[in-house]
Amino acid sequence: MIDHATAEPPVPDLRRMNHPLPGVVGVFAASTFPFAFSVAGGDTASALAAGCPVVVKAHDGHPHTSELSQKIIQSALPDPALLGLVRGIDAGRRLARHPAVAAVGFTGSIPGGKAIQALIDERPGPIPFYGELGSVNPVAVLPSARRDGLAEGFAASLTLGVGQFCTNPGLLFVPGGTGLPESVAEAVTATTGGPMLTERIRDGFLDGVARLGKLTPLAGGLAGEGAFAVPPQVFTTDLATFAADLPGIAEECFGPAALVVTYDDPAELPAVLDRLEGSLTATIHASDPEEARRVADSLLRKAGRLIWNGWPTGVAVRWAMHHGGPWPASTAAAHTSVGAAAIRRWLVPTAYQDWPAGLLPPELRDDNPLGVPRRVDGVLA
Amino acid sequence: MIDHATAEPPVPDLRRMNHPLPGVVGVFAASTFPFAFSVAGGDTASALAAGCPVVVKAHDGHPHTSELSQKIIQSALPDPALLGLVRGIDAGRRLARHPAVAAVGFTGSIPGGKAIQALIDERPGPIPFYGELGSVNPVAVLPSARRDGLAEGFAASLTLGVGQFCTNPGLLFVPGGTGLPESVAEAVTATTGGPMLTERIRDGFLDGVARLGKLTPLAGGLAGEGAFAVPPQVFTTDLATFAADLPGIAEECFGPAALVVTYDDPAELPAVLDRLEGSLTATIHASDPEEARRVADSLLRKAGRLIWNGWPTGVAVRWAMHHGGPWPASTAAAHTSVGAAAIRRWLVPTAYQDWPAGLLPPELRDDNPLGVPRRVDGVLA
Repeated sequence: MIDHATAEPPVPDLRRMNHPLPGVVGVFAASTFPFAFSVAGGDTASALAAGCPVVVKAHDGHPHTSELSQKIIQSALPDPALLGLVRGIDAGRRLARHPAVAAVGFTGSIPGGKAIQALIDERPGPIPFYGELGSVNPVAVLPSARRDGLAEGFAASLTLGVGQFCTNPGLLFVPGGTGLPESVAEAVTATTGGPMLTERIRDGFLDGVARLGKLTPLAGGLAGEGAFAVPPQVFTTDLATFAADLPGIAEECFGPAALVVTYDDPAELPAVLDRLEGSLTATIHASDPEEARRVADSLLRKAGRLIWNGWPTGVAVRWAMHHGGPWPASTAAAHTSVGAAAIRRWLVPTAYQDWPAGLLPPELRDDNPLGVPRRVDGVLA
Repeated sequence: MIDHATAEPPVPDLRRMNHPLPGVVGVFAASTFPFAFSVAGGDTASALAAGCPVVVKAHDGHPHTSELSQKIIQSALPDPALLGLVRGIDAGRRLARHPAVAAVGFTGSIPGGKAIQALIDERPGPIPFYGELGSVNPVAVLPSARRDGLAEGFAASLTLGVGQFCTNPGLLFVPGGTGLPESVAEAVTATTGGPMLTERIRDGFLDGVARLGKLTPLAGGLAGEGAFAVPPQVFTTDLATFAADLPGIAEECFGPAALVVTYDDPAELPAVLDRLEGSLTATIHASDPEEARRVADSLLRKAGRLIWNGWPTGVAVRWAMHHGGPWPASTAAAHTSVGAAAIRRWLVPTAYQDWPAGLLPPELRDDNPLGVPRRVDGVLA
């Protein structure tokens, strides 16, 4: 951004660009993504790309992977000290409160995010906390939706990675009397779960399933083999019962579990969707966009990514990706931990007023030696 | 942002744009700016421009101005309910904790900002707090600086608005043995203060002056007339004494008070500047940019706006303006409450995946009917 000085009104020359946050970025590793969101992954990569040193609090679910990841990344860095690693709950506490830490990133559970937020709230000065946490990821199937493959697609997305995606679909709204719940039951019965990543995740899943146990079981898959193996499970209820039990009934059960909510009239959906907590994603299945307009308006305020006739698991690292959403999906809904925009979390602007050309960063010099795109006197150039 | 789908690798169509935060913006009015940062002003204007309804907690220092401002702004809004007004400490508490409030803005004192932050920390889910708070605004005069008019410029900036600017210069580093401290003394002695805006601001100023009283008084102006009138006052010390008493000695004294720190060797400045807390601005006076390089590198990490051969009071509402800085200058150093970028505080992105054209916002349709600048498949268009 460059605004040249003007005489009328008298305004100085002003130029602004981003610099790395003046400090260390603390990253809390996720249990669920040993590569995509732990020592390696979007949080660390975007912070290093911004120019910040990073200290990762390793997750105790994969200590060796963490250490090997650190060594491999360090070998590609100009200075290995740019990536530190600490272990254990006490080290995590000290990291979140350390005066040199300028921001913290975490992609994991709601309780984990709340614990980190509480540590940060104790600091004498606030720092940003970019947590991408729990998400129930509602999917609304409208009457005009194509039905073939729908139940199988849902079951595949629900059970991908034994359901250990923050974007797997935990809430499916379907029109009653259409045979869709029965198709979903058939598809889920044909699935096989498998081992969850840690004992704690397995226990959390079983607690969540017990909580849903007061509802009608719709289907269950096979547990599969291995330690901490669990079977996919789906429950069902109708829209009125669901609405009466909000918000607790819609809490995320992390793993391959979902709730199928049947409705009679799609016009009743928006008022119920308006009462959901925030999610990372929301999905509509329909063939008629006009039929979906009111449901889409509701979901726009409840999720950071809206999906049409697809499934929410899987996120592409692209310019336009947004992986965030209203609380509890995220602690900072304006930001994303996936995609090119993830770097923005670790940057702060500086404005230079009447600054001499010799001290200006090259990006802000009149001759633009780096040829970067800029807004000059209000016009993109 | 538009990323069209690709077959290899298989990636869906993704489009992202900003929408207003799904909720109300709470604005806490400043005592010091009845127009620029209260009911009217940058916080309210940027939030309304983003598309968010606003509720302002009026400052009890100017209740009638607040009410009249609300009426005038409401008369220009499509719906007067877009701008609400509440009064009193209890209403402020309820505003910061209200579930419908999605973000809070405040441009005022550090204690006020800490109190609002504490209320927000009590919320079950976090929301962003954009506070622009205290700032000591260091000014480093280097040996190569032109001396004519310098002392007068400093005295005028220090006493502008009886010093009630968050950007007035409270800390002046000058080379010793140059006659500059004497010129500053002469210029400040010629000034006249005046009434501060409220009794509380006056009392805070007198407390701050008492705290500085252990240092050597350099000069004082006249108090001027009116209730709550105070005289400008300047103290002095040398760099070693200053460094030994950090951080307390560099705390902001809000009003027309400053500390002149004399140094012998400019090479000693960076290590001391590195230990300052964050400020909104930092200023260098010099005629030789190379002499200023190391001081500039230190100040870059301490302030959001760097000024060359000027004075920090006064901020221009421009594209490139940045009015923010490291804590305690700001609670969110990546953001500004002045300038075009102020709107970003109240926006959150939504990504649309494989979304039908009929439901896409016009900004994201392939034919770009509004002709807005966009990044399409990674290229600015």
